[in-house]
Amino acid sequence: MQIIKYPEKENWQQLTLRSKVNQENLNSLVSEIFNEVAINGDEALKKYTKIYNQVELEDLLVSKSAIDNAINSVSNELQSAINIAKENIEKFHAVQLEKPYKIETTKGVVCWRENRPIEKVGIYIPGGSAPLFSTVLMLGIPAKLAGCKEILLCTPPNSEGKIHPAILYAANLVGIEKIFSVGGIQAIAGLTHGTETISKVFKIFGPGNQYVTAAKQMALQFEVAIDMPAGPSEVLVIALENANPSFIAADLLAQAEHGPDSQVIFLSTNEETINEVNKELALQLEDLQRKETARLALNNSKSILFNSIAECIDFSNMYAPEHLIIAGNNWQNILHLITEAGSVFLGNYSCESAGDYASGTNHTLPTGGFARSYSGVSIDSFVKKITFQEISEIGIKNLGPTIELMAEAELLMAHKNAVSIRLNSF
Amino acid sequence: MQIIKYPEKENWQQLTLRSKVNQENLNSLVSEIFNEVAINGDEALKKYTKIYNQVELEDLLVSKSAIDNAINSVSNELQSAINIAKENIEKFHAVQLEKPYKIETTKGVVCWRENRPIEKVGIYIPGGSAPLFSTVLMLGIPAKLAGCKEILLCTPPNSEGKIHPAILYAANLVGIEKIFSVGGIQAIAGLTHGTETISKVFKIFGPGNQYVTAAKQMALQFEVAIDMPAGPSEVLVIALENANPSFIAADLLAQAEHGPDSQVIFLSTNEETINEVNKELALQLEDLQRKETARLALNNSKSILFNSIAECIDFSNMYAPEHLIIAGNNWQNILHLITEAGSVFLGNYSCESAGDYASGTNHTLPTGGFARSYSGVSIDSFVKKITFQEISEIGIKNLGPTIELMAEAELLMAHKNAVSIRLNSF
Repeated sequence: MQIIKYPEKENWQQLTLRSKVNQENLNSLVSEIFNEVAINGDEALKKYTKIYNQVELEDLLVSKSAIDNAINSVSNELQSAINIAKENIEKFHAVQLEKPYKIETTKGVVCWRENRPIEKVGIYIPGGSAPLFSTVLMLGIPAKLAGCKEILLCTPPNSEGKIHPAILYAANLVGIEKIFSVGGIQAIAGLTHGTETISKVFKIFGPGNQYVTAAKQMALQFEVAIDMPAGPSEVLVIALENANPSFIAADLLAQAEHGPDSQVIFLSTNEETINEVNKELALQLEDLQRKETARLALNNSKSILFNSIAECIDFSNMYAPEHLIIAGNNWQNILHLITEAGSVFLGNYSCESAGDYASGTNHTLPTGGFARSYSGVSIDSFVKKITFQEISEIGIKNLGPTIELMAEAELLMAHKNAVSIRLNSF
Repeated sequence: MQIIKYPEKENWQQLTLRSKVNQENLNSLVSEIFNEVAINGDEALKKYTKIYNQVELEDLLVSKSAIDNAINSVSNELQSAINIAKENIEKFHAVQLEKPYKIETTKGVVCWRENRPIEKVGIYIPGGSAPLFSTVLMLGIPAKLAGCKEILLCTPPNSEGKIHPAILYAANLVGIEKIFSVGGIQAIAGLTHGTETISKVFKIFGPGNQYVTAAKQMALQFEVAIDMPAGPSEVLVIALENANPSFIAADLLAQAEHGPDSQVIFLSTNEETINEVNKELALQLEDLQRKETARLALNNSKSILFNSIAECIDFSNMYAPEHLIIAGNNWQNILHLITEAGSVFLGNYSCESAGDYASGTNHTLPTGGFARSYSGVSIDSFVKKITFQEISEIGIKNLGPTIELMAEAELLMAHKNAVSIRLNSF
């Protein structure tokens, strides 16, 4: 890690910049596949699955028997772990369901808000080396709690046409019945346009590579919403007193192993802690399976020495990290100062891995500085909050003249007339 | 209005399609102005204000004295009306502020969520014929309640360099101190990049023409969030028993006067009601100031006769209107069936104008079918909901093995190690 000491405040902004993502222009490829899927439906999905996943599928829908087989092949230990994670995620998300409240803003004018689930949602789970069954939980559980009627899951098959059993186990556990063996741009195109077997959805969730990200952007043009803009994962760690350098190094490496573009930042007021963490990094790195990936990520990463914890927090807020770990003691005193982050891990034992898997919070979080304006995925992401109002005769008598005056001042006389015609009816 | 009787269900989808918005490709113009504003700051803003608003400004920031003068020129009546609207909007939005809750998901694992305001937000208020001071209330009030630290308002000056006094009155009333005389693409570029006088913001709100809409899309590429995708305004009215045809006609016209691309739909199970509403439309249209606009909108609009109220609601849900008016009695029985809408107006006296101005609900709502996946603007739009977790020694002992198993199954060994290193420290 690069070590930076006492940077001048005017240089902080520069230090918060993420390394540029190589945004190759994929629009023509995405457009082509979207068009073909719109016209040829399943046939196009199968064609691109053959091209990109080297497998010819008869059915895109994963069969009941394939799911049953997969469940049997997941070890009891892993099943139990997934079950515990599910319970925790459910507990944390269930309380986010808002109860309706009614407000009488003026006598006879009653307003309220009610949740309605987004009826049809699509969940994308990437394939590749790591089977991200944890993301199935993080998206499937709030979708179910919110009451979404159709939850479709798309994930690419391997070259034998199979999906990792842990993904099928997790999907089945949370109650997702429609699992499709299709990935990449073609999966997002299928969810956007609908095909013979895949329903058109109203919102698409889930991580993915640059192809999937470009496809999700394209989906927006067809009135399909997406969860949030995607970017490389990030962690920022601030060391308070009694922070443990080996724990911090382990947390930084957990981030670094995601990919060479992972963003890893460590802040401290103690030069010795920075040196110790860097020593620990070198030591722990050697034992990692993904050490080449982690090493590349660390090359772009920074340890920064600041004068005070207040400066560390100011810098962190300016950076707006996806994950923020406040390591060490007495974090209680600074909690209120944290204004920008996706999810925050407090103290020496709250490792980010806990939130990634099993503590209950959601791991789908804003990256790339979007933590300044976006929240992570929650129940809110799967519902619409519809406002309602009931105005009685008394209500319109009370509020009508106010509305008439305002509409007239905005030169919208038909808006005014909608009130006047009612007032004149009494 | 076109009258359609008992359409076959397979044709419904076609009837829900919005007339295509002419999406001229404005990207090169938007890019050019964004680049110039990024480089030349205020100078570029002034240049484009001269080109598009025909006025040369010394200061973009509206002065305190200009605001004071404006306040004095707004009639007492209108001031009172705006004050009443403000109180109602405040009452309705204040209860949306979520209180933190803590959940112990596993013994020793405590998770919670806290709101943080989006620190810097920009509000765009269009110029043109109608001074949309109501939108100042609808965006400024929740921004203030949420606790946003910097609230910037941009609105184009008229050819004398002035801003409508009612806009300044409303902005001052809700406590917006930074009002800038700049509109169009250049305003959005200024809020995105920041200039000498305008701070870079994290999220941009507000309606606008196709130029502003294209500019807001561009802002997204610079990590600035936007409120929601924009489109022409819409109303769908369903007549229950005892619905009043003149009231319905007035409500349809209030929508139609917005613009020739306004979407107006009327559903009924009673052919006579449809005929009466259409007669009333013709009558009331003649007296409207904006009758040519309304007439054009009505030409694209539809009255549809259905067999049952259940069918009307099914169709409405498929259409997903921005505004839904359930006119007449006994709406209570069908409320739960309404699953897709931005805001719903119930009974004979709940005209849409009430929600546009003063009942308390927000008038910034999803259009173009986005009500299937988006909520209208609320306090939620101005905050991030950050998750926090505190895991104790006991907590990591309890949950650690679960996390280790899951991380290992996802082949993320550094994630596992972040737990193991803690468990091994005991």
